[in-house]
Amino acid sequence: MTEETPDAPQVATSERLSGDDLRDAWALLDTTERVDGFRLLAPAEAEAFYLSLTAHDQKELILGLPSNERRLWMRLLPPDDAADVIQEAAEEARPGLIGLLDDSARREVTILLAYAEDDAGGLMSPRFARVRPEMTVDEAITYMRKQVNEKLETIYYGYVLDSQQRLLGVVSFRDLFSAKGNAKVSEVMKKDVITVPENMDQEVVGRLFAQHDLMALPVIDADGRMKGIVTFDDIVQVVQEEATEDIQKIGGTEALDAPYLQIGMRSMIKKRAGWLVVLFVSEMLTATALSFYQAEIAAATVLALFMPLIISSGGNSGSQASTLVIRAMALGELKLRDWYRVMRREIIAGVTLGVILGVIGFLRIVMWQKLGLTEYGAHYLLLALTVAISLIGVVLWGTFSGSMLPILLRRLGFDPASASAPFVATMVDVIGLIIYFTVASWLFLSYAKA
Amino acid sequence: MTEETPDAPQVATSERLSGDDLRDAWALLDTTERVDGFRLLAPAEAEAFYLSLTAHDQKELILGLPSNERRLWMRLLPPDDAADVIQEAAEEARPGLIGLLDDSARREVTILLAYAEDDAGGLMSPRFARVRPEMTVDEAITYMRKQVNEKLETIYYGYVLDSQQRLLGVVSFRDLFSAKGNAKVSEVMKKDVITVPENMDQEVVGRLFAQHDLMALPVIDADGRMKGIVTFDDIVQVVQEEATEDIQKIGGTEALDAPYLQIGMRSMIKKRAGWLVVLFVSEMLTATALSFYQAEIAAATVLALFMPLIISSGGNSGSQASTLVIRAMALGELKLRDWYRVMRREIIAGVTLGVILGVIGFLRIVMWQKLGLTEYGAHYLLLALTVAISLIGVVLWGTFSGSMLPILLRRLGFDPASASAPFVATMVDVIGLIIYFTVASWLFLSYAKA
Repeated sequence: MTEETPDAPQVATSERLSGDDLRDAWALLDTTERVDGFRLLAPAEAEAFYLSLTAHDQKELILGLPSNERRLWMRLLPPDDAADVIQEAAEEARPGLIGLLDDSARREVTILLAYAEDDAGGLMSPRFARVRPEMTVDEAITYMRKQVNEKLETIYYGYVLDSQQRLLGVVSFRDLFSAKGNAKVSEVMKKDVITVPENMDQEVVGRLFAQHDLMALPVIDADGRMKGIVTFDDIVQVVQEEATEDIQKIGGTEALDAPYLQIGMRSMIKKRAGWLVVLFVSEMLTATALSFYQAEIAAATVLALFMPLIISSGGNSGSQASTLVIRAMALGELKLRDWYRVMRREIIAGVTLGVILGVIGFLRIVMWQKLGLTEYGAHYLLLALTVAISLIGVVLWGTFSGSMLPILLRRLGFDPASASAPFVATMVDVIGLIIYFTVASWLFLSYAKA
Repeated sequence: MTEETPDAPQVATSERLSGDDLRDAWALLDTTERVDGFRLLAPAEAEAFYLSLTAHDQKELILGLPSNERRLWMRLLPPDDAADVIQEAAEEARPGLIGLLDDSARREVTILLAYAEDDAGGLMSPRFARVRPEMTVDEAITYMRKQVNEKLETIYYGYVLDSQQRLLGVVSFRDLFSAKGNAKVSEVMKKDVITVPENMDQEVVGRLFAQHDLMALPVIDADGRMKGIVTFDDIVQVVQEEATEDIQKIGGTEALDAPYLQIGMRSMIKKRAGWLVVLFVSEMLTATALSFYQAEIAAATVLALFMPLIISSGGNSGSQASTLVIRAMALGELKLRDWYRVMRREIIAGVTLGVILGVIGFLRIVMWQKLGLTEYGAHYLLLALTVAISLIGVVLWGTFSGSMLPILLRRLGFDPASASAPFVATMVDVIGLIIYFTVASWLFLSYAKA
């Protein structure tokens, strides 16, 4: 499919690695070993293997090869992938990589490099099949066939452009094949085309693909001129990457942006330490809050036993609610204007879940006391009631704040996935403790003293 | 593209809804309102709108329509989508839906229904373009063109089968177009085809698509016979769904399997209550563990102030580690045999992160005491040291158990995403408290008493 198959070094057949062998070992190898392994592959396999790598690994490989071998591999990439590889490289290595391309590819790549990596423009390829509206169907088929060898991203759609490069419609090969040969393209083309603006976020582009089962989407600039296409193969990766980022952020770490086993120890720790310290510092508020209740704890140490249980219940219900809301927003199922419906749902859910946990907690304390497993003192029923009521309040607070915070953060322009976890955790723990000790002093301590 | 365009009810133009209007309002409507809105769409728009719905919503819509309109919409679906809709319906409604199909579609759908929904077999479509190895390129092009109207899933690949339906190779339209017209298909076909077995999990199929940039993958039975193809458009949805499931499980809830705003209140609460109760009951172990330290708490209530801070730090470092490992396993970046490398990395990360938090915690206690913000008593330095050492132990335990548990669970055949959260939370909290009070009695209490 590509004209240039780079020469592989001559090696004895017995030494030949298969691409699958190399893929299996990949994570365990350092860069030098990867380059060595790669050079042992048979030429055809090397090409397939190389094209299946991430942009990050392609960059490592190219920079690891002797400089006389680099050009071939760089030129093997379609322009959108070449742009990705260049964006992966350090600032100082980029001009060298761009210089490896031929003139026309260099022009294309330079345009792509101007777009943000996460935008539709950064994903698109400028190589798409063009047809003119006045062509006949047979002419269009012949014309598209001729374009096959121009390394087009896809030949399965022909984009119908006017002389200003404005998109008039699209014809699929399928449509052309089932139309009469002498019909005009303008008669058979689909005019109602879904397009994306250059600066649309890739997450939104991914949702469009999932919704409409498309193979490619045309990218349009502000004047309606077609600049390129985003194809499904880029989108599967985008959808994976976006989900990985969200999962990692929900887990309370910065997005790693690299496979777990391959990221350097130092950058992994840096990405984890950031949020961990933020969480730690904000959780210090629990110590501050508790210092106001030291007298209550001294008066009834039994209260301290249930602190972890109560705050963890609030934390768990909060993380359920925030996860569901964050994901629903990422999938576009939930809009900001739905906040009131979410709040209503979460209040109902919070009360129900709180009552369930409260009843279990109540029974647990009463049973343990009756069975003689733990001695909670004469006022164990009051203690059980305090725990039960606190649980309802804390779980309700957890679902409420866990669901509203991501919406509020998005409203304020922050990424709900990355900022919700720490805020919810802290709010739920601190407020949870205040709820618990307020209920305790009002119910348990006042009676226990009397 | 489809022969049957169902008759839409006659309505005045002013009442005509657009598909976008309906899509915007969708989440807010109940089933009756959705059906009514859908029937207001212009026929062509109704078709596009209908095809863009999830299988769940298609099912709702079909069952909501008068029975004389159902047949048209059911027959509009390709067999794999029809099978999905039938699987969404309640057991008793399925025969009725199957009965709406024509004979040949019914046969195809019945075969598909035998596969598990999450397997390659459950995703595939039996409608793919077949060519014979002895055909010439020109014959193959003509033959594939003829198949265009048979509602094929894709015409862009021709699968070369022998008389036993065994897959010999694949030719893309692109290959055929660039080959000589009188060459034999067997000469131009690609023989090294990536195939998937019928029972391969859809998550693995999704990874293959992301890795190889393919438009379709052939599905093969145990005897090497080709049964169908899985196409990229199904895969974008699969990748989204699998990520959503994992995110929801990591957030401590069962996978909702429906959009947040659309799932019924009762089933949402059921899906959340399950894990919440499991978590709550296992967190009760913290109360049990603490009951053994009641004397220590009574001796120094100041120890209780730092309990939430310490266990939350362990919990946060544990959730970071488990999230990273779960996602890396889901993406295939991490295999079971990598457990030792993961452990080594997490021990280094745990000690480093623990020391960072320990130092901050130490300084916080000393500063608050010196600044007179809180009174921690004469032994505040010992208290600060106790908290710092405990933090190192707890964070290390968090990263260790958080990273090893998902691996262990997968080794035992469980889903690491759904079971890790509760286990890690409980283990980290209970062991964290034990670490804290062990360090405290060995360091703080023994000196404070003396």
